Amino acid sequence: MPFQSRSEETCERILDAAQNCFAELGYDAASTSAICQQAGVSKGAFYHHFPSKQAAYLALMDRWLESLDVRIASAELDSPSVSASLQSMVTALEPVFQGETEQAPFFLEFWSKAARNPEIREAAIAPYYRYREFFSGLIKAGIDDGNLPNIDPEMTANVLVSLAVGVLIQTMLDPDGADWSKVVQQGITLFLNGLLPSVDTQN
Amino acid sequence: MPFQSRSEETCERILDAAQNCFAELGYDAASTSAICQQAGVSKGAFYHHFPSKQAAYLALMDRWLESLDVRIASAELDSPSVSASLQSMVTALEPVFQGETEQAPFFLEFWSKAARNPEIREAAIAPYYRYREFFSGLIKAGIDDGNLPNIDPEMTANVLVSLAVGVLIQTMLDPDGADWSKVVQQGITLFLNGLLPSVDTQN
Repeated sequence: MPFQSRSEETCERILDAAQNCFAELGYDAASTSAICQQAGVSKGAFYHHFPSKQAAYLALMDRWLESLDVRIASAELDSPSVSASLQSMVTALEPVFQGETEQAPFFLEFWSKAARNPEIREAAIAPYYRYREFFSGLIKAGIDDGNLPNIDPEMTANVLVSLAVGVLIQTMLDPDGADWSKVVQQGITLFLNGLLPSVDTQN
Repeated sequence: MPFQSRSEETCERILDAAQNCFAELGYDAASTSAICQQAGVSKGAFYHHFPSKQAAYLALMDRWLESLDVRIASAELDSPSVSASLQSMVTALEPVFQGETEQAPFFLEFWSKAARNPEIREAAIAPYYRYREFFSGLIKAGIDDGNLPNIDPEMTANVLVSLAVGVLIQTMLDPDGADWSKVVQQGITLFLNGLLPSVDTQN
């Protein structure tokens, strides 16, 4: 990133090192010392940016979620139909469903830690709520515009988020098991067909 | 279970204890000694049934998958329409989507271990392939019978499995976040609507 301050640059460097260490060694085995060594920073610098190893862990998840938001923002969500918005979003998110392979151990361990640690659990489920709200807003707008039938927006948003989460976990466990971005596309097409009988089912 | 042999009964007792220990302490911290102590068996008895802690871990996943198979077998899958088969299956699986809450740490850690351990990974992804094959067979039969349009059975089976996996992970991370069995039902309804325009979208 150009014009990044030195402090921001150090912060990013620590996060990159932390991500590698967590993915390679696992959360428990990745010590703050190992992270500092890989980042080439002092412990003082680490603690200046993050109060704890857990704080760096949570910041990493936030950084990943921000990258998703940037992708979603690049999609044309203000297009006249919900159908076009969703399809544009799937295209924008394609690289995500084509493999976060290297970081898979990090993400899968995050969910595992979430089951035992309330603060991590909070961080793990917050994005689901955010995305559910986002999708249900999109669906509500479609209903108001007369583009969608009168379905339950929350329940339907849950279906879309569940599909995305399910594909994501399989992308990570089994990257070559299927063309995962095509699976998402097929899911969205089936979904839209369910709502808009005019869309063609064949692919 | 009635008429269980003493050896089978010991085996089940070890698995119950292992499941509790893994859920409570995590895989790494749960020692074979702790499992034996909780099961009230000797180490000799443990190793008679399982060559290693990992073998018991994998056997637990198998036991859970077998319980899913029993539920699926109880569904009326030979009904005349794919739509009825799928809806009967969702009903049979309802308790699964209503919470495996206590065992959540066990399942979530299983995926996390899968990212690092090839044997666990093999065991973690095998059921996806089995269920994908099962669903794609169901869909193929529907296409042959003229009940379904000519969609891609593998791709569509992937969508269904992804939806189920996505709901399952959320059931475990956030049991009260939604009525998860309703989310699955809504997903199947939307899916069937996409294929069968005659089904009513409203719910």
